Amino acid sequence: MSVYEKSLKLHMENKGKIEVISKVEVKTPEDLSLAYSPGVAEPCKRIAENKSDVYKYTSKGNMVAVITDGTAVLGLGNIGPEAALPVMEGKAILFKEFGGVNAFPICLDTTDTEEIIRTCKILAPSFGGINLEDIAAPQCVEIERRLIEELDIPVFHDDQHGTAIVVAAAVINSCKLLGKNLCDLKVAMTGTGSAGSSIARMLKGLGAKRIYAYNLDGIVTKDKYDKYDFLVKELLDQKIIDSPENFEEDSVATVIKGADVFVGVSAPGMVTKDMVRSMNTDPIIFAMANPTPEIMPEDALEAGAVVVGTGRSDYPNQVNNVLAFPGLFKGALEAGATIINEEMKIAAAYGIANVLKEEELRADYIIPSPFDKRVAQVVADTVKKIAIENNLVRK
Amino acid sequence: MSVYEKSLKLHMENKGKIEVISKVEVKTPEDLSLAYSPGVAEPCKRIAENKSDVYKYTSKGNMVAVITDGTAVLGLGNIGPEAALPVMEGKAILFKEFGGVNAFPICLDTTDTEEIIRTCKILAPSFGGINLEDIAAPQCVEIERRLIEELDIPVFHDDQHGTAIVVAAAVINSCKLLGKNLCDLKVAMTGTGSAGSSIARMLKGLGAKRIYAYNLDGIVTKDKYDKYDFLVKELLDQKIIDSPENFEEDSVATVIKGADVFVGVSAPGMVTKDMVRSMNTDPIIFAMANPTPEIMPEDALEAGAVVVGTGRSDYPNQVNNVLAFPGLFKGALEAGATIINEEMKIAAAYGIANVLKEEELRADYIIPSPFDKRVAQVVADTVKKIAIENNLVRK
Repeated sequence: MSVYEKSLKLHMENKGKIEVISKVEVKTPEDLSLAYSPGVAEPCKRIAENKSDVYKYTSKGNMVAVITDGTAVLGLGNIGPEAALPVMEGKAILFKEFGGVNAFPICLDTTDTEEIIRTCKILAPSFGGINLEDIAAPQCVEIERRLIEELDIPVFHDDQHGTAIVVAAAVINSCKLLGKNLCDLKVAMTGTGSAGSSIARMLKGLGAKRIYAYNLDGIVTKDKYDKYDFLVKELLDQKIIDSPENFEEDSVATVIKGADVFVGVSAPGMVTKDMVRSMNTDPIIFAMANPTPEIMPEDALEAGAVVVGTGRSDYPNQVNNVLAFPGLFKGALEAGATIINEEMKIAAAYGIANVLKEEELRADYIIPSPFDKRVAQVVADTVKKIAIENNLVRK
Repeated sequence: MSVYEKSLKLHMENKGKIEVISKVEVKTPEDLSLAYSPGVAEPCKRIAENKSDVYKYTSKGNMVAVITDGTAVLGLGNIGPEAALPVMEGKAILFKEFGGVNAFPICLDTTDTEEIIRTCKILAPSFGGINLEDIAAPQCVEIERRLIEELDIPVFHDDQHGTAIVVAAAVINSCKLLGKNLCDLKVAMTGTGSAGSSIARMLKGLGAKRIYAYNLDGIVTKDKYDKYDFLVKELLDQKIIDSPENFEEDSVATVIKGADVFVGVSAPGMVTKDMVRSMNTDPIIFAMANPTPEIMPEDALEAGAVVVGTGRSDYPNQVNNVLAFPGLFKGALEAGATIINEEMKIAAAYGIANVLKEEELRADYIIPSPFDKRVAQVVADTVKKIAIENNLVRK
């Protein structure tokens, strides 16, 4: 049986993957009088008097909503909220297994940006945080930004930042291994969607000297400014992506030539062996198109790449965002953080990178395994520390 | 320590009462590939092809949303969505403990009727049913009706119908014990809010000959029609509540005189011993004001009442809606019902009543205990049968 058939069987036999259970006993009349009426009136009254006591007497403080509108699910595209539910349930159980964080899947029957924002705000009282998931770009960026601004609980769009944090960790460790300096890095990217734009931002935040990008309109340059959505415009405006000058050919080959790092969040087969050969010494490649990468790892290695990572679990250096989100929310919730900001994301990347000691690092072991139990705790501690130090916590 | 202090401690020590757990293992890379990427793409695709497969591959079919806006919580009133969360978590664990139904608390940060309706519709993809809870009347009635009409999953407002179903069961058994005929019953009520109006409807549905009611405007009569909200107007229009004629005094005493059954969903102390003495032979009294009933059971019994029930767990015959909602949703979900209708509610009342065999019935044991394990299953089977027989199930 293929992994797909097995997965179908698993989902059918269990009728989904999540269950809501009680943390307290409800076996006797006394249990009932404490967990429910009449005793429950007391925590209600306390919270009515002081709203922040909701964190003291309810599950809110350890409950994340995994919210989607089903418009950009896996590589399947706009399949709708019902069809997105298996992914969101999967996400919820990863939150619990890897971070000890309770999470609940919410699939919205609307794709209107304003309505999604409003719904998230209406739902906020039950949740300690919101993980946005599989919402199409560029709406997802607008939705995340508005919610960060308008809500006092952490909001995080995993498709944008989850991958970005893990790629950043991988780049940090690659540089450590190969003796490259983050501030000298020239980066080439294919893809400037929600993940791509957050990766560019993170790598620039780490110090990358120059980032060139290629998307459906060719090389990203100021000349084509009017063609771009607000995401790409912003990356150019803020000099996150650099606009190359005087190039001969508008191609991937042009941006990748001389680069230290290639990051692909685009489509299969975008990169050839010759392009890898044109990179700077000790090429570092993260080719994350799914399921088929921009260049297959064996080809990249044959052409001289030293570090190669993909999104796949059947090759070394899997860029798996389960390394980031469980610890990130665990830390944010434990700290009582009101936001997950750029500084926390960069700190999380360093946290993930530092889980592997220098003597453990190898070209095919740049990123810890998703099952490395150390990761979530390190990420949580890092995020918690920054939230508290910067007073980004609720009163 | 009082029940309130104990309850506060319980809530604080456990940080709330609910937890979301995985039904499947996520310990190995293979587990991950089946429960999440890449395997999960398969159930997603199947659901995208055929939306109703969401019941086959996800937890939707056994997941109820417990939704409130926090406007009418317990006896505490409009305390807001955060302060309502302990009650909704309590409700969720009762669903699980008594009916094996997963339920998740959703406290909405809006009190606008249209926005509540819209939000419930937007949330529907993740849930197999919606239990509305502690929403102020008469908005709750409008919200429930619209959702029943516009959604294809069962929607049920427990404050309206939960109590009504259990009162109906209690009245059925009282008549059985005392040899009264449901069709001859004269009923007197105090309170015509959301619970009161549903109780009136249920008792009329059982066959009650005459129902008189008393509310904040005095005896409910056609003369005062313009004073009433749409709920009471409708009860008069549909001849659920009868309008008495030629009475001398506009008082509770007037409506209760000669009644077989008194039902109070109003305020403490509305009923005196003299009023009980003025009732028909073998008075039946359900005085459900919380925490202090319309008349205390010892007073009612002293004045000649035979059957006395209250909302309290420290007296016999507790009218506890945990007898209704877990089995009701269990049955509806198992049947794939698209609605919970009046016929199912009446059947549920007979189901609860019939759990006690005639030889078990006593004046102080008219209603089964909330912990009677037979109840939820009997209610579920009854509801399931009606849903299937009447083809009120999804295709």
